[in-house]
Amino acid sequence: MRAAIFRGGEIVVDTVPEPVPGEGQVKVRTLACGICGSDLHARKHAPRMVEMAKRIGRPPMDLSRDVVFGHEFCCELVEHGPGTQRKLKPGTHVCSMPVLMTPAGPLGIGYSNQNIGGYAEVMLLSEALLLPVPNGLEPQHAALTEPLAVGIHAVAKANIAGNEVPLVIGCGPVGLAVIAALKLKGLHPIVAADYSPARRALAETMGADIVVDPAHTQPYATWAEHAAMTAEEKAARPPWQAFLPPLKPALIFECVGVPGLIQQVFAGAPRDARIVVVGVCMEPDSAEPMLGIMKELNAQYVLGYTPDEFAASLRLIAGGAVDAAAMVTATTGIDGVAQAFEDLANPEAHTKIIVEPWR
Amino acid sequence: MRAAIFRGGEIVVDTVPEPVPGEGQVKVRTLACGICGSDLHARKHAPRMVEMAKRIGRPPMDLSRDVVFGHEFCCELVEHGPGTQRKLKPGTHVCSMPVLMTPAGPLGIGYSNQNIGGYAEVMLLSEALLLPVPNGLEPQHAALTEPLAVGIHAVAKANIAGNEVPLVIGCGPVGLAVIAALKLKGLHPIVAADYSPARRALAETMGADIVVDPAHTQPYATWAEHAAMTAEEKAARPPWQAFLPPLKPALIFECVGVPGLIQQVFAGAPRDARIVVVGVCMEPDSAEPMLGIMKELNAQYVLGYTPDEFAASLRLIAGGAVDAAAMVTATTGIDGVAQAFEDLANPEAHTKIIVEPWR
Repeated sequence: MRAAIFRGGEIVVDTVPEPVPGEGQVKVRTLACGICGSDLHARKHAPRMVEMAKRIGRPPMDLSRDVVFGHEFCCELVEHGPGTQRKLKPGTHVCSMPVLMTPAGPLGIGYSNQNIGGYAEVMLLSEALLLPVPNGLEPQHAALTEPLAVGIHAVAKANIAGNEVPLVIGCGPVGLAVIAALKLKGLHPIVAADYSPARRALAETMGADIVVDPAHTQPYATWAEHAAMTAEEKAARPPWQAFLPPLKPALIFECVGVPGLIQQVFAGAPRDARIVVVGVCMEPDSAEPMLGIMKELNAQYVLGYTPDEFAASLRLIAGGAVDAAAMVTATTGIDGVAQAFEDLANPEAHTKIIVEPWR
Repeated sequence: MRAAIFRGGEIVVDTVPEPVPGEGQVKVRTLACGICGSDLHARKHAPRMVEMAKRIGRPPMDLSRDVVFGHEFCCELVEHGPGTQRKLKPGTHVCSMPVLMTPAGPLGIGYSNQNIGGYAEVMLLSEALLLPVPNGLEPQHAALTEPLAVGIHAVAKANIAGNEVPLVIGCGPVGLAVIAALKLKGLHPIVAADYSPARRALAETMGADIVVDPAHTQPYATWAEHAAMTAEEKAARPPWQAFLPPLKPALIFECVGVPGLIQQVFAGAPRDARIVVVGVCMEPDSAEPMLGIMKELNAQYVLGYTPDEFAASLRLIAGGAVDAAAMVTATTGIDGVAQAFEDLANPEAHTKIIVEPWR
């Protein structure tokens, strides 16, 4: 079968053997698979990803061998493997967390030599993790379950009390998913910052109340304008806080993930801010702890999602609570994956490109 | 009057004019003042402290002029200034947060050209902030109110749920105060790590249940040995957590404050650990966000304490709930301050040296 393969640091099209489902697994035809920022990172920084996986005790990729990326997928069930319960019929459209259950434990799909990801015609999934796609939802929109789940998880990890004013730094797919998840929590106003006009427009579509172009306006200044305490909140402060600016709690989502960003957030954040680091920076980075200390900042680093959050994400898209369709800016076949990786560098042109391997 | 003065990067003894209390202020005789790790840092890194103060909008020290350090003090009330209520009689022993209320707002005591700190015979305090020392507590022990309050605040900021197993990295005065505050919370076992046998013995005195010498044993391995989930906790986990190590939540207090420590904690911490950064690192430092992301770590940076925490700290020492006396390893006069700064470099010999300016 055909696949877009990560080989020698590049994305190339070639054929790979069709996988055969093992115990508890199913074979599926990939209908749609989103290209994730992590895939772009991985192409550039794969050796660092391998080193990091080794350091935290996860199975690393062998970069001398082929890897098929793609972990944001919607598929059609084709064939049940041995030891399956077969409750879903072949032809059913399904989503799944990008994890394959094996006798050795769960293994990731998308950055693995063993498991073929979504940039190929066929892949394997675990029957136990299959979620049938409801409401006849388009596969390209069901494929957004995974990136939306990232935002839902980030917002869940923020333990929102209800009085925070959120500021989302970066309106790529991760920032947009965070905005959508914040909107679902009913937290307003949502302030969001991005250099790209197209991304700011999308941020508004997803639920941002105020958007900022950091090239012209300091996002933290705009945040402060919209974070003034009410008279009641001011009156309820202990007397010793009278000398502090009367601002509501800041909840900042770092959704960019490039070196220097965390330091920038530490420098710009108001006192007592809580920062959720969602952007995955694969390069070594640094931030001054002294800034964190002087302002008593809190940094919550997040990754991924729980199975419950993943399932909720699919339901929210299928039920229309999240306008996922707005994020899709193009679709392409296997032959277009390499070009799509290039195209995604331009935030004005693209947000989420969906690969349709059957094309 | 005589004072140990920070002048030209060194501690020198000289005379300075006796201060005159302003509106709402009192003149006090300094009975005892602890030497803080921050004072040692400040002597070495004063220009960085000035730069940081400017960046966060606090009034910086003018290093071309004299500064009298000392912010952990117990004093005797001498004279009321104008506009005071005079509820406490001269002769009363008092503690106060190291803050002076002025018409321009609150100003720190101890790193200020205007306000004389505790390494001098006389200083000014704000009447509104005075706490009378109860129970005839020795001034040298009342002076430990400030460092203990740092530990109480750090533990309060940790929002303890009750099921965490704490690990305290570094058993200097800050780490010891954290251990004392953890003991008050009833959280056990408390695991604590320090290279110094004397500091490990003190950690046990203050409440550590298990002490580790990092030269011989990995603190995180020792922590894991004592953090095993109960059978009930294991059974209560969601199924998808079955592949994670069955460990209770980690609550790590970084109480060292030297470059590289936060990265070391990020590298050693187990998945989902919460890290409270109490050690004040005044030098630029860095940590890899990727480690935080892969393990979903949370870092809470803390500084200082609230007025309530400060008052509680004095009550706890006076009531005997905290054995503060154990931390005092020497006392000295104004002439001995410079030598005491040197002596404190040896953790085997000293933990807290108290300056008694009247000697």
